Amino acid sequence: MVIVMQRGASILETKEVLRQLAGLGLEARVVDFPDGPNIVVPGVGATTAYKCLEELPGVKEVRLVSSSFKLSSREFKEQNSVVSLSPQVEVGGSEIALIAGPCAVESEEQIVATAKAVAAAGATALRGGAFKPRTSVYSFQGLGEEGIRLLRIAREESGLPIVTEFLDCESLELFGDDVDVIQIGARSMQNFPLLRAAGESGKPVLLKRAMMATAEELLQSAEYILAAGNPRVILCERGIRSFEPSTRNCLDLNTVAVLKEKSHLPVIVDPSHGTGVARYVAPLSKAAIACGADGLLVEVHVDPQAALSDAAQTINPAQFQNLVEELMPVAQAVGRQISASESSRVASPAQFSGLRGSVRFFFPG
Amino acid sequence: MVIVMQRGASILETKEVLRQLAGLGLEARVVDFPDGPNIVVPGVGATTAYKCLEELPGVKEVRLVSSSFKLSSREFKEQNSVVSLSPQVEVGGSEIALIAGPCAVESEEQIVATAKAVAAAGATALRGGAFKPRTSVYSFQGLGEEGIRLLRIAREESGLPIVTEFLDCESLELFGDDVDVIQIGARSMQNFPLLRAAGESGKPVLLKRAMMATAEELLQSAEYILAAGNPRVILCERGIRSFEPSTRNCLDLNTVAVLKEKSHLPVIVDPSHGTGVARYVAPLSKAAIACGADGLLVEVHVDPQAALSDAAQTINPAQFQNLVEELMPVAQAVGRQISASESSRVASPAQFSGLRGSVRFFFPG
Amino acid sequence: MVIVMQRGASILETKEVLRQLAGLGLEARVVDFPDGPNIVVPGVGATTAYKCLEELPGVKEVRLVSSSFKLSSREFKEQNSVVSLSPQVEVGGSEIALIAGPCAVESEEQIVATAKAVAAAGATALRGGAFKPRTSVYSFQGLGEEGIRLLRIAREESGLPIVTEFLDCESLELFGDDVDVIQIGARSMQNFPLLRAAGESGKPVLLKRAMMATAEELLQSAEYILAAGNPRVILCERGIRSFEPSTRNCLDLNTVAVLKEKSHLPVIVDPSHGTGVARYVAPLSKAAIACGADGLLVEVHVDPQAALSDAAQTINPAQFQNLVEELMPVAQAVGRQISASESSRVASPAQFSGLRGSVRFFFPG
Amino acid sequence: MVIVMQRGASILETKEVLRQLAGLGLEARVVDFPDGPNIVVPGVGATTAYKCLEELPGVKEVRLVSSSFKLSSREFKEQNSVVSLSPQVEVGGSEIALIAGPCAVESEEQIVATAKAVAAAGATALRGGAFKPRTSVYSFQGLGEEGIRLLRIAREESGLPIVTEFLDCESLELFGDDVDVIQIGARSMQNFPLLRAAGESGKPVLLKRAMMATAEELLQSAEYILAAGNPRVILCERGIRSFEPSTRNCLDLNTVAVLKEKSHLPVIVDPSHGTGVARYVAPLSKAAIACGADGLLVEVHVDPQAALSDAAQTINPAQFQNLVEELMPVAQAVGRQISASESSRVASPAQFSGLRGSVRFFFPG
Repeated sequence: MVIVMQRGASILETKEVLRQLAGLGLEARVVDFPDGPNIVVPGVGATTAYKCLEELPGVKEVRLVSSSFKLSSREFKEQNSVVSLSPQVEVGGSEIALIAGPCAVESEEQIVATAKAVAAAGATALRGGAFKPRTSVYSFQGLGEEGIRLLRIAREESGLPIVTEFLDCESLELFGDDVDVIQIGARSMQNFPLLRAAGESGKPVLLKRAMMATAEELLQSAEYILAAGNPRVILCERGIRSFEPSTRNCLDLNTVAVLKEKSHLPVIVDPSHGTGVARYVAPLSKAAIACGADGLLVEVHVDPQAALSDAAQTINPAQFQNLVEELMPVAQAVGRQISASESSRVASPAQFSGLRGSVRFFFPG
Repeated sequence: MVIVMQRGASILETKEVLRQLAGLGLEARVVDFPDGPNIVVPGVGATTAYKCLEELPGVKEVRLVSSSFKLSSREFKEQNSVVSLSPQVEVGGSEIALIAGPCAVESEEQIVATAKAVAAAGATALRGGAFKPRTSVYSFQGLGEEGIRLLRIAREESGLPIVTEFLDCESLELFGDDVDVIQIGARSMQNFPLLRAAGESGKPVLLKRAMMATAEELLQSAEYILAAGNPRVILCERGIRSFEPSTRNCLDLNTVAVLKEKSHLPVIVDPSHGTGVARYVAPLSKAAIACGADGLLVEVHVDPQAALSDAAQTINPAQFQNLVEELMPVAQAVGRQISASESSRVASPAQFSGLRGSVRFFFPG
Repeated sequence: MVIVMQRGASILETKEVLRQLAGLGLEARVVDFPDGPNIVVPGVGATTAYKCLEELPGVKEVRLVSSSFKLSSREFKEQNSVVSLSPQVEVGGSEIALIAGPCAVESEEQIVATAKAVAAAGATALRGGAFKPRTSVYSFQGLGEEGIRLLRIAREESGLPIVTEFLDCESLELFGDDVDVIQIGARSMQNFPLLRAAGESGKPVLLKRAMMATAEELLQSAEYILAAGNPRVILCERGIRSFEPSTRNCLDLNTVAVLKEKSHLPVIVDPSHGTGVARYVAPLSKAAIACGADGLLVEVHVDPQAALSDAAQTINPAQFQNLVEELMPVAQAVGRQISASESSRVASPAQFSGLRGSVRFFFPG
Repeated sequence: MVIVMQRGASILETKEVLRQLAGLGLEARVVDFPDGPNIVVPGVGATTAYKCLEELPGVKEVRLVSSSFKLSSREFKEQNSVVSLSPQVEVGGSEIALIAGPCAVESEEQIVATAKAVAAAGATALRGGAFKPRTSVYSFQGLGEEGIRLLRIAREESGLPIVTEFLDCESLELFGDDVDVIQIGARSMQNFPLLRAAGESGKPVLLKRAMMATAEELLQSAEYILAAGNPRVILCERGIRSFEPSTRNCLDLNTVAVLKEKSHLPVIVDPSHGTGVARYVAPLSKAAIACGADGLLVEVHVDPQAALSDAAQTINPAQFQNLVEELMPVAQAVGRQISASESSRVASPAQFSGLRGSVRFFFPG
């Protein structure tokens, strides 16, 4: 059960609800969202027994939630959530989000050139890794702080909001405000202290599914972020581990359908990690949009063969442009759009200063 | 390596090639296809060492094949194969095949009503189980021979070619000629005697991927059918087993892209078994077509809730009609079509008498 | 629910029980076991509602069975079943069964030499494939009928009962009586017509778990055999498919514990296919015995490197002898034995003529 | 390749080796172990080309290492490593380590009572969670700092070294020195900043395999710890995720054999998380010891049913005592021991002050 308070509800009204709940022996947690406080009562499922609490002053509604996750659930919020990455760029609306860029930031030349190329081809945001989670301690670990600096230059040059991964709370606290979207990678999906820190940042969070996580576990991880007061979460399917050797992972589009049903959060798909094979990125990207994904996260590099990581699954800007063109009719076939004109997406650098995004409601149909 | 003989090649010419191969210490197998004999030399990979054999009389071409499967490979045959189920219905061409029907044939009324309804909605073939592979010995095992008889009535009434599964060589030999397409189910994908019998039948064979089979294993199973002289094989992805509890299986669309790359055989997708959830059939069907599948195998029942098996994953005719309408723009978006008019697909019963299909080549673009 | 009839129960008494069940609207199936008929009522779970039927003449007991499998369940029969392969060899008693031999029968010399060697080293039965299920149609498919003939010679020479796999009903009916144990391989675990034929044969059946079957599905497949009147089933864990590349399969010993809890049937383990690596056979064999397995199925070849199949996972007779010696203290540590002396296990050929095994009850402790 | 320097090698000698490597265009990393510096050259596999470097002053040996992990590999160090948790307790020697305790520290009474009970029953160390990684943000998250304080009391009372999990670098740096062994849980196996921090702590580290990690990925994660100068790593198999519903995870003992072959590090097994079912803990514990595990990590609670987490997989002290007694003969059967007498394991509190463990070499046989 979640008790949704009115936008203007006073602290006293909230406290009174808590007092009543305590009297009923119920534990609760107050989560302040931009549009008002929510009182989450985890111990109570979808029973109507407490509907009467709607009569308390300041209470807007009592939402019955049967699932193990609450604020992320479709039961809590029927409408699709739309997360804005910049004044021009939203994820979860009718427009398909195309987040593109290299696996890792390698140099100013590389990231700026790629940023401009993907912006011209139709990307709505730039991805690039500064802190890389590498299986081997002896592999290139990313440029770290310098990588963040180069991403900011690429943002200035391309006008695209920037998405980058953080591996620990310390670097997230140091550099989180320098970027537009905080990515939590598959290996960190159950790094609970990091999820809390991402929640407290208030920034949009791109949360990737772990390679062995169920849809429910992904939503429970998202709940850590929402329960910290941050509803700006974008879920990302990026492939699960299977026995099949011809792909790096098994991109699981079933879960896109499951997540869209069970949650109001936007869902994007990463066909690059999902398949691990550049020539399978196009067919699976089309499939992702056709089955309801709100966007794509695609690895693009000006020179894939020279990439320091993930070369085999990375496409070049020309291939990305072809992909965007192939995606347009598919998006239209399922009632979505991909904007052709760059100007409609890209902001002028000035607009970014001190940007803080917000969540609004999107009513389909 | 596969040595493709000319259509009119004489037996003596073929024997001479075998003699030469024997002289080189190479074992070979002659496979007669409708368009001429092929000499498969499994022990030889993609080496050009034997290209000179092209100079022998009657030899059309020496195809270099590196993969473990030969006749099923794209290296053996570049063009997509098109398998005809009836004079009107083909799988693998520009038209999307829609094979629909109940999990099991239950009664004349049920199968005829479903057949007419799916034909009206746009189905190109009728599926229905007479011999059911049931996990429990105590579950309904299908109507057997009587089920075949009812399928033939449904074919007469609807004009749709019929697809049904066989579980053993004996029933396949008894009843295979009574149906248009022989289905080999996921549990039988590595039933090698059954694959040989399906090959010898000369009928179109719908071969489903086992729930734990790799793409290569599926193609090696298809090779059993082709190596018996039958090139009329349709591959079917139907979901692999994973750890995810919210779906019955994990429909694996990655493998559609893999199969279309590695093989010339048509590939269809079964979203009903693939997800096990009726409300996920539509999004995954769109995804399947978007990523290049040549058709769908969908469980449709006039009254899903009353179905004796697979109720949870079965849709009704009205839902199937909506699905077909939603699929049309997706098919167009990837350069395929779904015919609206029934007459263009459905044959008059007479046309079926003694039908034997054939394989022809389809040149895309 | 299973209604166990007294050994001497008359047909009339059985029919009366069926009449009463029909009156209650319950479907039932009569299964005749060597120790009397059982009336299986699948539609009834573990309710005590029908305990009163115990008062009917000829009824010995009403067993409440909650699981989806009935005759295979521990609820139906508390005591471990012991299956005898020959007058000297039992599986499921206090003695650990050691079934050893090559993947495939290749020649008289190979199979006889291996049979004598494993008999001398402590094997209790000989395994060898005549009909081989091969992923590739171009691989060695086994010697077929000739392989059966050679196995019979090896039995004469070594005195060991012989275990071999059948792939279809036809060959099982032709040659089943020539061998002591019918093996149903992992790929055939859900070949239901073959399971029925194995049940009707009345011979001991070694049923291997499919590489992605649950414990419950394995027991439901065993139920096909028992429901045909044949309680002489030995279950075999042989590894499931996983994502781990350093072994061929993932030998799943958890399932040994699960099967021993849920079923009275003997359970053996195949560490050769389970790991696919000869040097892992010894540690996993010890683990299998330590966690309660009733025996092992081990691939042994006089010259593993020369084996026509499964060379990488096959050990030689000397390694097998070391394994048996290492296993003895492990078996003792869990209250089981491995007989040192050959004479105690091996029969003289004459004793085999017309052998038909039987099931008796084994009371542990 | 790893260049092992002599214990007393001077900094100048080490620098000279690096200079020579730089001259050869090879990157290297110096890792100081308690017994001397090692120069890891990741880019070089098992080639003998650089054996000549053994002639440089201060160089003890050039080890050829083909695997992706270097310092963790058996190629780098042939002898089993033995990690000491306290002056009395070692893991990796002939004595089997038994680490037991509750999933979570709940209260002083609970942890002290459990500690004393498991010590009396034969445990060699106490496990207990203070910082709990919980899938749901609404579940009990552990007592945190207070939990560490209670573990220290339990150590004083029981004399057992304490093992506890850390989820982030910050708490590890704050409290790592308060415990004897730092546990890195399955969900953190690829939390690379945390692995580095555990390496820098110099404390013994118990590293659990992630539920979908390969053996090689586990060893690559261990390499992060060793490459930070800390060779005191204990690997732990705790079950992988599979499709089988009758157990929580699939305890994978194959990997114990793989790890013991490929690495010199001690390997223990967690049958509690591995199976998720209390009644399967005993058979799988025996199997783990039989296949070569160096110890067990077992969840024991004075009152399992009252446990705040993992109740279903937790055994009570009496069951643990029975388990230890059943394990003794199994350990002996594979040439290991489990000490009966408590005094031989348990230290007096005083001995712990300022303890820093060390690594020594153990020569089997």
